[in-house]
Amino acid sequence: MPSETRTLAQWLVDARLEDVPQDVRHEALRALVNYVGCALGGAPDEAVNIALRALEPFFGPPTARILGRAERLDPLHASLMNGISSHVYDYDDTTPKNYSHPSSPVASALFAYASVNRVSGPDFAHAFILGFEAESRVANAVYPAHYDVGWHITGTSGVFGAATAIGKLLGLSVQQMVWAIGLAATQAAGLREMFGSMGKAFHPGRSAQNGYAAALLAREGFTSGEHGIEGPRGFAAVTAANYDLSKVTTGLGVDWDLRANTYKPFPCGIVNHPTIDGAIQLHDQFHPAPDQIAAVRLHVAPLVLDLCNQQNITKGLQGKFSVYHGAAVGLVRGKAGIQEYTDAAVNDPAVKRVRERATAVGDAAITEDQARIEIDMIDGRKLSRFVEASIGNLARPLSDKQLDTKFRDQAVLALPAAQVEDVLAACWRLDALDDVGAFVASTIPSAISHEHTKLVRG
Amino acid sequence: MPSETRTLAQWLVDARLEDVPQDVRHEALRALVNYVGCALGGAPDEAVNIALRALEPFFGPPTARILGRAERLDPLHASLMNGISSHVYDYDDTTPKNYSHPSSPVASALFAYASVNRVSGPDFAHAFILGFEAESRVANAVYPAHYDVGWHITGTSGVFGAATAIGKLLGLSVQQMVWAIGLAATQAAGLREMFGSMGKAFHPGRSAQNGYAAALLAREGFTSGEHGIEGPRGFAAVTAANYDLSKVTTGLGVDWDLRANTYKPFPCGIVNHPTIDGAIQLHDQFHPAPDQIAAVRLHVAPLVLDLCNQQNITKGLQGKFSVYHGAAVGLVRGKAGIQEYTDAAVNDPAVKRVRERATAVGDAAITEDQARIEIDMIDGRKLSRFVEASIGNLARPLSDKQLDTKFRDQAVLALPAAQVEDVLAACWRLDALDDVGAFVASTIPSAISHEHTKLVRG
Repeated sequence: MPSETRTLAQWLVDARLEDVPQDVRHEALRALVNYVGCALGGAPDEAVNIALRALEPFFGPPTARILGRAERLDPLHASLMNGISSHVYDYDDTTPKNYSHPSSPVASALFAYASVNRVSGPDFAHAFILGFEAESRVANAVYPAHYDVGWHITGTSGVFGAATAIGKLLGLSVQQMVWAIGLAATQAAGLREMFGSMGKAFHPGRSAQNGYAAALLAREGFTSGEHGIEGPRGFAAVTAANYDLSKVTTGLGVDWDLRANTYKPFPCGIVNHPTIDGAIQLHDQFHPAPDQIAAVRLHVAPLVLDLCNQQNITKGLQGKFSVYHGAAVGLVRGKAGIQEYTDAAVNDPAVKRVRERATAVGDAAITEDQARIEIDMIDGRKLSRFVEASIGNLARPLSDKQLDTKFRDQAVLALPAAQVEDVLAACWRLDALDDVGAFVASTIPSAISHEHTKLVRG
Repeated sequence: MPSETRTLAQWLVDARLEDVPQDVRHEALRALVNYVGCALGGAPDEAVNIALRALEPFFGPPTARILGRAERLDPLHASLMNGISSHVYDYDDTTPKNYSHPSSPVASALFAYASVNRVSGPDFAHAFILGFEAESRVANAVYPAHYDVGWHITGTSGVFGAATAIGKLLGLSVQQMVWAIGLAATQAAGLREMFGSMGKAFHPGRSAQNGYAAALLAREGFTSGEHGIEGPRGFAAVTAANYDLSKVTTGLGVDWDLRANTYKPFPCGIVNHPTIDGAIQLHDQFHPAPDQIAAVRLHVAPLVLDLCNQQNITKGLQGKFSVYHGAAVGLVRGKAGIQEYTDAAVNDPAVKRVRERATAVGDAAITEDQARIEIDMIDGRKLSRFVEASIGNLARPLSDKQLDTKFRDQAVLALPAAQVEDVLAACWRLDALDDVGAFVASTIPSAISHEHTKLVRG
């Protein structure tokens, strides 16, 4: 029996878009709409500014473009920048099967590639679907042990997605695809210790860049081990105490992990979402005055406290990893959008007051889709809400229309409103475009638009 | 008490060359002589050719140079190429404390940096010593569990060495150095599954490149987690079932791991060396005719079979991971130099015949410095040799003169003999040079030299 690595490589090389079911193709479009919105929203972020400033002297010929920015650079560095911008708000998609954020590493490399090489919409969508599937299957094989020990699975599995997606566009042979997977495996990295710093958004960016490079090297004959995934010293055995290699190959071409993809309604760690959802529901029903809240008790899945137990915080980035902050903005503001995860929001006295009155208990009886919130008001009233399945999760997916709203909320951070609408409309037609490179160019803030924005913002 | 990461960062920032003992400074020179020889020997290798061909379209402005090659490129990619060339023959140094090859990631980045930025010999040597120490201490903390599970510790620890060495030359603050270490930690990668492929030599190269980038990003304020090494989801906890963080900081500035460095007499996995040493001794004493050898029995440390148990091989690269091949070339040719690890040598009928008659047994009573070889001759004679401490190990270090010989054997693969002597002499004065960049330039094969070489090789 061929190895998992070779079976996967063979499937990727043989795969044809016409064999991908229509619902999977539509889900790929939804994932790409969500991704592009995130990349545009994060494009002006300081983490991207810093990375550009630090690495600009090393950029290759400026043939490529970043989504939502004017700089020109080489496509490897463009992959890195797309990856940082699309993940910096922690607003990109999540596969609950393995808690990775699957689109960013794959799409970040693909849009960079397509900004330099002519790629048709169908080929682009197909490469995205395949890279997503490959990376998610590798993640499934090692989840949860791999994640539990502290790997940021988006970074570690993402490099497989970028390598295979770019490898598909490069037309790699099966042997070359095996090497691309091996060179991806041996670059898999990213620690959860980086959560709450710019290092987290660096992970999908570096995965995109390194996966892209893996495919380039493999095409020229740079060899790797033949068993990057399943070997005794390969990715699975080295990075996970327990793993199930059958998940890499079982049902290839029949089961599609895009069907298990979800889109965040809130730009923070997904495990906080049930709590935020419940807090917003309480806000909308009771409008509790922040200064009348005596105590907030959160009952959450144990993983929530493992990931998001920061309470004494001062930075917007930290807020993403604070279930207390999520509860506070939900109760105080009735929403948890980009503006609720700024430094200003974290230091908003009303938000801070409620956050500091919150306590949380991990409860094994509560799933990661659920949360219970109990509020003691100073006047003695007790409010509570149990969230059975959080908004945005598989049981309550965001509609295409809700994805549009989310897209607009983010894209306006980079582009004037008229351009936002044009880009959004093009996004929904990505898999039918003649040339995805022209789409990437359409996301660049033009000089005129900039002037316009300045005038409007005056 | 400050964390290990911050303590290490503080020490690196405060460190002064005049506080480094003289014997450590001399050992640094020996390590650099050995490194440069390896980098020159590997410079013309196909792995470097392929990496250059694959990535050349993405090179930044051609300000930097590779040791032993004429190409001009950016210093990040130059770091990668130096790393590949210096490790591709598996001939670089080894620290038996943690089985990493410590010089390559650090020196590969430093020579690339110095080819672009003016760096004095003393500053260069100091940065090398510090990067070596930082990386080796991180490796000590996680060895052996980290290595045993399958990490190629040269890659995973090497990125710390490159980041801190470049960080020292960039004059990072303590906070910036903490981030550089964190960004190194979150890029740490490299699987032992790559052994026997070009992927292995890729590891120190990518470590050099990624560590260099980590320092650049940290300087501009790209943040990482504060506890990259010791955090609950940091490098040590995630990549090793057992670890001892005190090894990162205990005795900083007093104990120096350069004192525990060794230089390989043979260009292959170091665990094979006692066997090769014994085989050469048997060859020199008895000159056994290959076709008269009936059986070869090897008694080796169990780790040898874990790493180097390949017997049915056809490639030079595989020979490096075959204890049977090491025994065979020692017995048949009485040496194990670069020419014994070519495809031709692996397929040499006499070598192949002896290799196929060899068996190996792992014996827990035999240390990794030792080996016992027993030979049955067809005429009934029995030859045997026990190697108590292999040549090149700490107990029997290569002399400076032996390092010269090793340097020449490798450097002639890239340079004409006269240039080899000039470079070797300059190597021994590296820590006193005005400008290490001029040294790097002196290792480039000139057009005239090329012509000369062509004429000579005719």
